[in-house]
Amino acid sequence: MPHESRIDVTFGDCDPAGIAFYPNIFRWLAKSFHDWLRTMGGHASICGKLESIGLGVIEAQSQFQHPLTDGDVLIVSIAIREWGNKTLGLTYEGRVDERLMFLAQETRGLFKRTGDAMVAAEIAPLRELMNAFGQD
Amino acid sequence: MPHESRIDVTFGDCDPAGIAFYPNIFRWLAKSFHDWLRTMGGHASICGKLESIGLGVIEAQSQFQHPLTDGDVLIVSIAIREWGNKTLGLTYEGRVDERLMFLAQETRGLFKRTGDAMVAAEIAPLRELMNAFGQD
Amino acid sequence: MPHESRIDVTFGDCDPAGIAFYPNIFRWLAKSFHDWLRTMGGHASICGKLESIGLGVIEAQSQFQHPLTDGDVLIVSIAIREWGNKTLGLTYEGRVDERLMFLAQETRGLFKRTGDAMVAAEIAPLRELMNAFGQD
Amino acid sequence: MPHESRIDVTFGDCDPAGIAFYPNIFRWLAKSFHDWLRTMGGHASICGKLESIGLGVIEAQSQFQHPLTDGDVLIVSIAIREWGNKTLGLTYEGRVDERLMFLAQETRGLFKRTGDAMVAAEIAPLRELMNAFGQD
Repeated sequence: MPHESRIDVTFGDCDPAGIAFYPNIFRWLAKSFHDWLRTMGGHASICGKLESIGLGVIEAQSQFQHPLTDGDVLIVSIAIREWGNKTLGLTYEGRVDERLMFLAQETRGLFKRTGDAMVAAEIAPLRELMNAFGQD
Repeated sequence: MPHESRIDVTFGDCDPAGIAFYPNIFRWLAKSFHDWLRTMGGHASICGKLESIGLGVIEAQSQFQHPLTDGDVLIVSIAIREWGNKTLGLTYEGRVDERLMFLAQETRGLFKRTGDAMVAAEIAPLRELMNAFGQD
Repeated sequence: MPHESRIDVTFGDCDPAGIAFYPNIFRWLAKSFHDWLRTMGGHASICGKLESIGLGVIEAQSQFQHPLTDGDVLIVSIAIREWGNKTLGLTYEGRVDERLMFLAQETRGLFKRTGDAMVAAEIAPLRELMNAFGQD
Repeated sequence: MPHESRIDVTFGDCDPAGIAFYPNIFRWLAKSFHDWLRTMGGHASICGKLESIGLGVIEAQSQFQHPLTDGDVLIVSIAIREWGNKTLGLTYEGRVDERLMFLAQETRGLFKRTGDAMVAAEIAPLRELMNAFGQD
């Protein structure tokens, strides 16, 4: 059950070559992820329930197929790729007028503080919470 | 005839105090300005017609009244404050659920390249173009 | 006793007109402010001592005199403009090779949480702390 | 012959969990890349020589090992991983006090405009240019 977010690419997102500066695409992945969490109560509420300090990113990657420019209406879809013991794998697709502009993947964990360090905890409680919202 | 843009404030816009990092508010002013230009053909088209390299910012300021946080649906309205010989003064208001979160002002010019330098040109051609779109 | 920070303006800071996108300049003011705080223990330590959630911005403005471009070595100096009852007024100057590129001003407060709201508290304790570091 | 850039992680780079928002890490990769190009004349000069509109990113990924926080002095090293026919593969390492905070990889191309599209051209001329600067 994929979630979709709309991003209006704007002038200030673009670089001197006139195309979206690529770190912004990761910013839009994160925005889409948080939009999706909002349908399940939002990041702060979920972290409160699961006693986590954040659903942080362990690994992220993107394959850029076509450049985005000022005025593009970008639709980012997000889908669950796989659940690990301590990880949630997500897949993203970015489209403008149905044309695939980029693919991307994130691996996220449920981070808890242990003394000084932040460690990825068992992810099962997040999966259960998402199940309760019909997301799996 | 004010223009309105919608901004969904997200996690990554916020700082360790949990509130929107203030430079992002200026980013949202610029986004609102470019959204407004889009109703008149967009920045690139307008600059092409007026032989300008950009409708750049000469001065910007903002008064922050209440902090913005993850999940806020921000409505930014933009209105013309005054036309100078070489400047366009704009006023912005940012609201969440009708509550005023910030006021802001930009002074913009119509920049042209002259040799090495960029100079603000007479703004009248921009005013005429905006008039033709009923914006004044 | 002004503090100076160095910023290397880079490609990704610049917009399709090839000049630094202006919200980045406010980002660099904030960076300079935090660099300066670091000479006095840093924001987190200062807030801990003063039981504050942050030295937040109430008002910010900048006058842009010349555009910044990729490769510019920007020196931002920061100086105290005035102390109010609940405010600290700061002045910034941005220079490249001694040439003044922008002026800017911030008004900051010492924010504390009171129930649901964040309010600006008496600023005297911050002034004392800064005095102890020879900053006034 | 790796190149190193220094990044001072600051408050505004960090999110409500108090750690650097991960898209900023990609912003720092791009900054390091452009710093490195600057030792060879800079992006604009190189693109001018090679009749390219940009050394754009085709694919990017990062593995985050430890979170970065306000005040960290981050050293990003960049090295050539491999040359393809139309691609340059780069490897990045981000360290704080010698501790590895992230690994990252970019695949970049030498983009040229062909009619409406941007296409990756043969990369050999970039390799020759870099060789002339002792980078290979």
